[in-house]
Amino acid sequence: MITRDDCVAFDEKDALAPLRDEFLLNENEIYLDGNSLGPVSRAVTTRVNEVLANVWGRSLVRGWSEGGWMAMPTRLGDRLAPLIGAQPGEVLVADTLTFLLAKLIGGALELRKERSIVLTDVANFHSDLYIVRAMAARAGRPITVKAIERSALESELNDEVALVMLTHVDFRSGEMLDLKGITTKVHDAGALMLWDFAHSAGAVPLDVTGANVDFAAGCGYKYLNGGPGSPAFVYVRKSWQGLLENPLPGWLGHARPFDFELDYEPAPGMQAFVTSSPSIIALAALDGALDVWDRATMDEVRAKSLQLTDLFIELVETRLPGVFEIVTPRDHAKRGSQVALRHAESYGIIQSLLQRGVIGDFRDPDIARFGFTPLYVRFVDVFDAVQVFVDVMEGESYRDAKFAVRNAVT
Amino acid sequence: MITRDDCVAFDEKDALAPLRDEFLLNENEIYLDGNSLGPVSRAVTTRVNEVLANVWGRSLVRGWSEGGWMAMPTRLGDRLAPLIGAQPGEVLVADTLTFLLAKLIGGALELRKERSIVLTDVANFHSDLYIVRAMAARAGRPITVKAIERSALESELNDEVALVMLTHVDFRSGEMLDLKGITTKVHDAGALMLWDFAHSAGAVPLDVTGANVDFAAGCGYKYLNGGPGSPAFVYVRKSWQGLLENPLPGWLGHARPFDFELDYEPAPGMQAFVTSSPSIIALAALDGALDVWDRATMDEVRAKSLQLTDLFIELVETRLPGVFEIVTPRDHAKRGSQVALRHAESYGIIQSLLQRGVIGDFRDPDIARFGFTPLYVRFVDVFDAVQVFVDVMEGESYRDAKFAVRNAVT
Repeated sequence: MITRDDCVAFDEKDALAPLRDEFLLNENEIYLDGNSLGPVSRAVTTRVNEVLANVWGRSLVRGWSEGGWMAMPTRLGDRLAPLIGAQPGEVLVADTLTFLLAKLIGGALELRKERSIVLTDVANFHSDLYIVRAMAARAGRPITVKAIERSALESELNDEVALVMLTHVDFRSGEMLDLKGITTKVHDAGALMLWDFAHSAGAVPLDVTGANVDFAAGCGYKYLNGGPGSPAFVYVRKSWQGLLENPLPGWLGHARPFDFELDYEPAPGMQAFVTSSPSIIALAALDGALDVWDRATMDEVRAKSLQLTDLFIELVETRLPGVFEIVTPRDHAKRGSQVALRHAESYGIIQSLLQRGVIGDFRDPDIARFGFTPLYVRFVDVFDAVQVFVDVMEGESYRDAKFAVRNAVT
Repeated sequence: MITRDDCVAFDEKDALAPLRDEFLLNENEIYLDGNSLGPVSRAVTTRVNEVLANVWGRSLVRGWSEGGWMAMPTRLGDRLAPLIGAQPGEVLVADTLTFLLAKLIGGALELRKERSIVLTDVANFHSDLYIVRAMAARAGRPITVKAIERSALESELNDEVALVMLTHVDFRSGEMLDLKGITTKVHDAGALMLWDFAHSAGAVPLDVTGANVDFAAGCGYKYLNGGPGSPAFVYVRKSWQGLLENPLPGWLGHARPFDFELDYEPAPGMQAFVTSSPSIIALAALDGALDVWDRATMDEVRAKSLQLTDLFIELVETRLPGVFEIVTPRDHAKRGSQVALRHAESYGIIQSLLQRGVIGDFRDPDIARFGFTPLYVRFVDVFDAVQVFVDVMEGESYRDAKFAVRNAVT
């Protein structure tokens, strides 16, 4: 049986341990909700105040040129690219995830004009389902969006399918899908593949180049720690650039934005996917948040993530045997960086944990969800969290949980 | 002839003068480009750091509930509503202006399904022209977008026109259109009216209620001083709410966002126009920027704006007679809060002024543009700016202007 001292020893040997000091975390609190919203880091505060005081503050409108604001969406994209295995010039930071998905869906449907079906996952995040249906309805031809069980994907793939849109790590279960295997099957059927990396970027290693992914998008506020409502990112494989059209064009995506031309002509490369400027302050926050990634490789992060989730699963199973269904796959190849537990009283359990300083979240109807984020979660945190968990379950305090914070953003 | 001492005296009597202290401005610089990007104010820095350190920093994911983040788009909308003459519950802050226009255009075309023409202004800001064509192309039926001369509006209005989209204050000339008169004519033709208030909000008094405006949107980074790429605002008249559909729906606009329902059901009121959350840090900046408006009425701002622009025009005409064409209307009823001058060498002139600490901007092909923002521009600034102007024109330094900052965001 693993002891607390074992966990202290794991932390002492952990190469990522010093990074925890970069983050603002509450004392006497164990934060296992970085899969919903990552914490603020020192560099975020520094970078934001630099923009306020020196760039916006001093350069004022000249910030667009002198301050490098025009280039921020592509510069941050290039910073982020290695985290998903993309090349420079293939990633852009802008907007929010739903808007970026809208652009990719709208554009992709034009590339498969002779096809009329979009496949997605019935368990997909609901915003993805709303926007894919909305863009399909505006495609200019009848499009059927099928929200299917993931297991039915192969049988549903045929020469009518234009696009498959899946979320790579399931937001409820934490199950990770086979990026390369599924992309290959989709391509074999002549369809295009769009991945949502909301729960993947900064959580698991990604190789969009090796998997030959067409399009992807993800958010900046979970494992990337860019802040609430942080600008999102979009990936378009180089070979699609210039072919994929942005269906929501704006002046900052124009080839010559300051010539004020009546007709839209897309800028080369990813710049065409800028509509108008996202908040520079928000971009600066994400820029600061990416600093810590200069000191960690995704392989290191992944190794520690699997150790943390393994440890949590093992401790829950040994100390609370038979109490929960472990929803997240045991198979490392199918696991993201969170653990989902099923229990009829999950809602009360999450509330009771919250009152005792262990922060996870609840997902309807019966999932207790815990994110393990190697940049700042320690092995000893996992041990202590499970101890609180045991106290909550044995004391049955969860049955009295009266109040609620249901609305944590996924 | 008005003297510098006269201007000093005007400033001494100016009730808005104390507000200048709230803003960070460079010494020895006269900033006449707040119509492009407003400066940072004390409250912006305070509010942003409060979010970083205390809300995001301490509440973490609980910021969505405890920190009031979920309500920010509508709360800021209500704060902003009086500046455009709207009622509580009619304004929302989110996204960027181009996206908000996309939502309004897409929604409006569904409300006039039997009509097939959209009228807009050939002199409109180019991003508006790109997005209206893009949304028209996805309307599900053939729509003709006509970019016409404003003077032809009446003759083009007929029972085929679904929507008229105009910018209320022209970004080049500074001409202000007749909000109520035009809206009434458009309604008389059975069409819907969408106004772009980018150069109006915080610049001129607006009465969307009195003018019976259907829809409007504007940006947060010009006269409202919300910062580069600040979230924008959207107005939907109460009587259209529940009827106008958001064509780019997202989970935060759902009636029950945390029930994770497969089908989209719009929230009541303006919340339906939220797609996903804009940056909370960016919203906090705009929230801070709105503080100064608690201490000024739009009538006071308008009175001083007209005094400043009158003064500038008078000084330019008397001290540089016949040198410029004054493009901005003399008629107060047709003037926004900027003055545009035409000169073949405008580009060099703006560069020379910039080198001497007077910040205006250039608009292709021959417009020198100066914004007069009563919250922080003094009468003495106008006097001193014109003195520099005289030096530049007499010294002909503008003919040597070699370098360029063309890319200031409108």
